[in-house]
Amino acid sequence: MILEKIKNPNDIKTLTPEELELLPGEIRQFLIEHLSKTGGHLASNLGTVELTMALHLLLDFPKDKLIWDVGHQAYTHKILTGRADQFDSLRQYGGMSGFPKRDESPCDSFDTGHSSTSLSAALGYCMARDLAGDNYKVVAVIGDGALTGGLSYEALNNASCLKQSNCLFVLNDNEMSISKNVGGMSTNLERLRTSSKYVGFKNSIMSALESWPHGERIISKIRSTKNGIKSLMVPNMVFEDLGIMYLGPVDGHDIKAMLETFKMAMSIQGPVLVHVITKKGNGYEPAERHPSRFHGTDIFEIETGLPQRSNNPGYTDVFSTVMRKMGDRNPEVVAITAAMAEGAGLKRFRNMFPDRFFDVGIAEEHAVTFAAGLALGGRVPVFAVYSSFLQRAYDQILEDVCLQNLHVIFAIDRAGLVGADGSTHQGIFDVSFLTSMPNMTVMAPKNKWELSDMMKFAVAYDGPVAIRYPRGEAYCGLKEHRDEIVLGKSEEIKKGSKVMLLALGSMVKKAEEIEKLLQAHDIDAGICNARFAKPLDKDYISSLMNDYDLVVTMEENVLTGGFGQQVQSYLTDLGYKGQVLKIAVPDEFIRHGSVTLLFKELQMDSESITKRILDALGK
Amino acid sequence: MILEKIKNPNDIKTLTPEELELLPGEIRQFLIEHLSKTGGHLASNLGTVELTMALHLLLDFPKDKLIWDVGHQAYTHKILTGRADQFDSLRQYGGMSGFPKRDESPCDSFDTGHSSTSLSAALGYCMARDLAGDNYKVVAVIGDGALTGGLSYEALNNASCLKQSNCLFVLNDNEMSISKNVGGMSTNLERLRTSSKYVGFKNSIMSALESWPHGERIISKIRSTKNGIKSLMVPNMVFEDLGIMYLGPVDGHDIKAMLETFKMAMSIQGPVLVHVITKKGNGYEPAERHPSRFHGTDIFEIETGLPQRSNNPGYTDVFSTVMRKMGDRNPEVVAITAAMAEGAGLKRFRNMFPDRFFDVGIAEEHAVTFAAGLALGGRVPVFAVYSSFLQRAYDQILEDVCLQNLHVIFAIDRAGLVGADGSTHQGIFDVSFLTSMPNMTVMAPKNKWELSDMMKFAVAYDGPVAIRYPRGEAYCGLKEHRDEIVLGKSEEIKKGSKVMLLALGSMVKKAEEIEKLLQAHDIDAGICNARFAKPLDKDYISSLMNDYDLVVTMEENVLTGGFGQQVQSYLTDLGYKGQVLKIAVPDEFIRHGSVTLLFKELQMDSESITKRILDALGK
Repeated sequence: MILEKIKNPNDIKTLTPEELELLPGEIRQFLIEHLSKTGGHLASNLGTVELTMALHLLLDFPKDKLIWDVGHQAYTHKILTGRADQFDSLRQYGGMSGFPKRDESPCDSFDTGHSSTSLSAALGYCMARDLAGDNYKVVAVIGDGALTGGLSYEALNNASCLKQSNCLFVLNDNEMSISKNVGGMSTNLERLRTSSKYVGFKNSIMSALESWPHGERIISKIRSTKNGIKSLMVPNMVFEDLGIMYLGPVDGHDIKAMLETFKMAMSIQGPVLVHVITKKGNGYEPAERHPSRFHGTDIFEIETGLPQRSNNPGYTDVFSTVMRKMGDRNPEVVAITAAMAEGAGLKRFRNMFPDRFFDVGIAEEHAVTFAAGLALGGRVPVFAVYSSFLQRAYDQILEDVCLQNLHVIFAIDRAGLVGADGSTHQGIFDVSFLTSMPNMTVMAPKNKWELSDMMKFAVAYDGPVAIRYPRGEAYCGLKEHRDEIVLGKSEEIKKGSKVMLLALGSMVKKAEEIEKLLQAHDIDAGICNARFAKPLDKDYISSLMNDYDLVVTMEENVLTGGFGQQVQSYLTDLGYKGQVLKIAVPDEFIRHGSVTLLFKELQMDSESITKRILDALGK
Repeated sequence: MILEKIKNPNDIKTLTPEELELLPGEIRQFLIEHLSKTGGHLASNLGTVELTMALHLLLDFPKDKLIWDVGHQAYTHKILTGRADQFDSLRQYGGMSGFPKRDESPCDSFDTGHSSTSLSAALGYCMARDLAGDNYKVVAVIGDGALTGGLSYEALNNASCLKQSNCLFVLNDNEMSISKNVGGMSTNLERLRTSSKYVGFKNSIMSALESWPHGERIISKIRSTKNGIKSLMVPNMVFEDLGIMYLGPVDGHDIKAMLETFKMAMSIQGPVLVHVITKKGNGYEPAERHPSRFHGTDIFEIETGLPQRSNNPGYTDVFSTVMRKMGDRNPEVVAITAAMAEGAGLKRFRNMFPDRFFDVGIAEEHAVTFAAGLALGGRVPVFAVYSSFLQRAYDQILEDVCLQNLHVIFAIDRAGLVGADGSTHQGIFDVSFLTSMPNMTVMAPKNKWELSDMMKFAVAYDGPVAIRYPRGEAYCGLKEHRDEIVLGKSEEIKKGSKVMLLALGSMVKKAEEIEKLLQAHDIDAGICNARFAKPLDKDYISSLMNDYDLVVTMEENVLTGGFGQQVQSYLTDLGYKGQVLKIAVPDEFIRHGSVTLLFKELQMDSESITKRILDALGK
């Protein structure tokens, strides 16, 4: 195994040409075997094996800075920096993260997880380097999907400020983000791919080069490597319009071609973008055929590529069904996704109502303001989005939707702990930031039927509404509790004595378990399904004043500014003399690991909560 | 006066050609006269007189939808829709807003205030229109400054989805946002302006047109109006790369030329961008010379253009001085602005340390992630930004700065009530959203010396730090209280009996006033300068338990998730049996008006707070 020779960063440089030729195959085999057992991001990593090798052959770690946009494609980088032996614990509790982490390796230069940040971070590094008189290299690798995010454009626009030194942007173009890409930029790249791939050099390109700093030197370099690199320069496209030199496209599975192009790019003063064409899932046939399915995959069988998946429907499936039905019943309902049609459960809606479905690209800000416009035009837009990605649209939710009190529905998936993806993906802030916005309504369903009922309520309502639900299996208990959804009204599941469990959304299920555990201690706890984090059910909460000594608030959200603090604040204002125990995520970032283990660590599993209740009661 | 004939929307269409020729001068005179008495956005409005007239001659209000990006340039639109008589109350309490407001007129299609939202909103309107089978026109007017914001790019990228109908984007290019524009896009526009203005038509352009839908028809139209419009089409630039038809540039003070071009643009299927060149401050010499100063102006003398301004330094001035000094002392300190060098107090730093100053354009997201990169490269970046604009970088603060626990300093100006600019500009959410972020430190100074001390503390600290201070005059009282700033430690100004006023930042001054008012009622209230909203001074807060029956928290931030709720939550958890009175902005959007009147309305002025305290004490 050549892979065994890679123990430390930069070891790849000691390999012979023959070994280098065999390495990509070994890495792919390694990734497929390991990920079939742990799950993880397969397709994107199979696509970037050679690209990563080429960069590692050129860069000096940890001195040079390599920034992976989004970061789920950095597995080969992890292998080449000596972390192959940690793949058994990939994305598991206490194990290696699926994303770059500075505290995991000095070769990880920037923690990523959210899209479109790499160019900005790279420019920051470059400016700091130049001010300090350092001379390390800075490279950002960004996908064509991430390039639809406005942040990447802000960085491209700002890149022209870099004149005296180099910054290399590698555009990893696989024609996909997670889904198929959309938008004008995508069409622009398509044109570049099809019109100019491997067509050789033209005089016009050479003459364009002459106007660049050191253009003469580059021209002579290009001439000397002409046959090797197969790339060419295309003037008059969007990057050059913004003052960024464009080189490419180059075959992202041809290490030699990339080496030549990267070397040339690094010798240029100013920002340079190298357009690299890769194939998602490269080298594993099931992933090549179904790159979306193998974006983030569960454990799977290598031969067939079939995932081992639970058959129980998740909240995303329930949402998907509701959307299809609502699409049928109400022609005003339209759906928006930010490049997550599959993940957010809009595939069926898209297929049935293509005219009323909008994939705006990885562009959450635009998604929300676009939704505001749709609402003003008389439509009922549903923006289905992961909680942690909705964060990017904070200002648009507040200013464009809430301030105008518009009827926009936010279907917030992955709200709560998400598990294996870790800190960047935990959806634990939305209750805090959404409830502080005037006019906003925030709901969370206890089970799958309630998600459906809440969606119907939201469509009938007039104003901004958010419905948050967690990743994973939809709860099927408490079917018999299906009171009509009324604005700001909670649903009491069971009266109790002394202790009331006031649970939001996913925590209702835990409240049921806790109620049983408390019975064993002769405590007859009540259970209430809060339903609304905003507006609070003030009538109900005030009714708890006299009957309960302990109110336990439960939520999958941070403590600060969350549901519990607001319930406690209201009760205290009323003069409540009992205790309020707030079960919530503490004030820290939560790393990856199974949701079950994370809940335990945070003392938010049913047993821990029971113990905390007993402590509060002095038992 | 021709202006008197404009009583209702669309009245402009009844004017004779001669009257139309005189109208721009009258509007300018009207604006200069009124704004000299009320203050307001002068320069941008003087630049858009003819542009607005041209659009009003073509559009049918309120049926057609006209969206003003940012919205401070919509004064002529307000005049032409029959609101001239409301200019005496412009931006005043109970009076007309300085921005478009749907509840002010049905001719205002989208409430704006923050940059770069108009294209997204317009696309939303277009999609809704097409789905409903309506046929109104949709026009967005966006400045070249707003085009540096990523949200506008996300919309441009998404605009190619519009194929069957029209959407008109008017690029109002005055080579300025508030300051001089920056970045690659700006250079691109510069190239268009200089290389192709008024150069006539070329065959190559005509042939490019042929590939567009209805290109033939357009060509013949262009030919027939050739001499009239003076505009031409420039292929191969950024908009066309993204699939948006580009027309221009056209003189934004030539109504006829614009009419012809807009008509043509509206006849095209798909998104069209018309590039209009205007001059900020046009027609008023002091504003032409100093467009930045006349961006948002106070009351001024018409003859000289000199503003009537208080001589007392504002917090922005204090910050400006501190930055200059810190720049001298510490070469690692660098400064970032999002197109607000003047407003945010970085002009002097820019002049003295140009290499360490970065204006990234209206791009708050990029500013923050760029700062993260700078911090990792060993610099100490200070991002000076208005509170309400920082909202746009929520995700980047959380994911790129806090998650990596990076030493980035947020100097948050205009934190609190801002007055005349109104609901979109109130900086009343930052305490809530920043304190919910792990690793973040949030401070607010009581007076000008404390802002300086806090900045020094922030530079010496290692981690994310936010310092928030309000618009306007810096408080000069309490000079004798200048205890060293210690992380998470408040500063007790005065012990009291029974009542403690625990005030954050700007509210310390009010606490002093309230303390005096309470003396008249024989109440000896204590005063504490909280200094830190995060981390809370838990030692001090717990020390209040036994000595005070009433703790009054005071902050210029919304109640929900704010400082007061967190203090109350902590005290209640400890078992505090006294009362907590939380003085904070209620859960609603706060409109424009003088800060003094707004405080009164919100019962947050010293007299109202005193009364609320007496009520709480049952007196």
